[in-house]
Amino acid sequence: MTFHATVLTLYPEMFPGPLGHALAGKALARGLWALQAEQIRDHALDKHRSVDDTPAGGGPGMVMRADVLARAIDAVSPEDDPRPRLLMTPRGRPLTQERVRALAAGPGAVILCGRFEGVDERIIAARGLEEVCVGDVVLSGGEAAALLLLDACVRLIPGVMGKSESGTEESFSAGLLEYPQYTRPQQFEGRTIPEVLTSGDHARIARWRHEQAEAVTRARRPDLLPAPPRDRNMKERE
Amino acid sequence: MTFHATVLTLYPEMFPGPLGHALAGKALARGLWALQAEQIRDHALDKHRSVDDTPAGGGPGMVMRADVLARAIDAVSPEDDPRPRLLMTPRGRPLTQERVRALAAGPGAVILCGRFEGVDERIIAARGLEEVCVGDVVLSGGEAAALLLLDACVRLIPGVMGKSESGTEESFSAGLLEYPQYTRPQQFEGRTIPEVLTSGDHARIARWRHEQAEAVTRARRPDLLPAPPRDRNMKERE
Repeated sequence: MTFHATVLTLYPEMFPGPLGHALAGKALARGLWALQAEQIRDHALDKHRSVDDTPAGGGPGMVMRADVLARAIDAVSPEDDPRPRLLMTPRGRPLTQERVRALAAGPGAVILCGRFEGVDERIIAARGLEEVCVGDVVLSGGEAAALLLLDACVRLIPGVMGKSESGTEESFSAGLLEYPQYTRPQQFEGRTIPEVLTSGDHARIARWRHEQAEAVTRARRPDLLPAPPRDRNMKERE
Repeated sequence: MTFHATVLTLYPEMFPGPLGHALAGKALARGLWALQAEQIRDHALDKHRSVDDTPAGGGPGMVMRADVLARAIDAVSPEDDPRPRLLMTPRGRPLTQERVRALAAGPGAVILCGRFEGVDERIIAARGLEEVCVGDVVLSGGEAAALLLLDACVRLIPGVMGKSESGTEESFSAGLLEYPQYTRPQQFEGRTIPEVLTSGDHARIARWRHEQAEAVTRARRPDLLPAPPRDRNMKERE
């Protein structure tokens, strides 16, 4: 079973875009995954190919119509489609590596890219859309987020990564950010590779790396650490 | 002064990619921003154009060399370049809309896209790189994150968004996720637009929208709410 991604967008020409190159592009050419970009406008109901209308209740911008989106979704994803249907939107739950891993292990995804002021809320319940957010930023549309999500998924599809990209020790995978890395040359602008890394003492290297990973995670992403300080204090007192 | 983005990458062919279309593409064509994609490999030191080497201390994968990256950065960004230098990496601090706003108001950015197991740590201090993460996921490289970051920045450059994309009421901008939106038709598969939105009572609509925005934020992103529940209880008791 091949991972099959279908993207619903007003800009199908953005796909595969960056996914047509490098790791994802090679995997696409080898048939390890498939990508279909569907023009939402092709499912409009009028001759002007309208996809949006003004917000009920007033306000700036335009809202994508539920009826047009329903037709577009139904055209690419029948009721018994086993693939999850995602809506890329800043209102969604933040994407996690855990969710990416689950998606990559499944049959693919149908990805709706929001534009304008959003989509009519009724389509979300009517077609069971999972609202997904990538980064706490506002985009011009969901396309850049869809490309990022697919990049994260595709590399995990069996056969896509070679040994050199193995990805066993990686940020988020182990719950910590990755330790700092160094490579040749030994000297760079007066800066030397930390002595421990050239010591040949594998236990010491492993210990140092774990300490470094913990330190960088504590400094930058305390939210990723398993136990918040308060709980830890409580345990110490027990 | 035009917003000038320079991307350092092993895959310059990925750019402008999606940024060559829609809002960002039109703005690029109109000269409202500029984009340069620089091949890091062109700054390699050997005839094989090597950019990476094995990690000091062992471990899987390859690490991008500090000396090659220094040459690439120096070629596109002189010491007095006022632009911030970003490194797209899962080890970075999460990108925020606030940071995007600051970047969009500035002269642009130099963006280094990490690949493989990361970059030699020494280049980060040596060239003052700001490590930025987009979403808690692992990518095949920083390119998809760079495209997303630039999409978020470019739409905020003065003159890029028209009135129809005005972006005054948006998720994250006001500290809350956006309220649900509806548009015509009035009836969609038995689902009706909430009565309040067609009432014409603007005060009631504003109140309803604020309540909805708070509710969706509390459900999905309690981390965005200003006061955690404990503090609020304490205030109520005072």
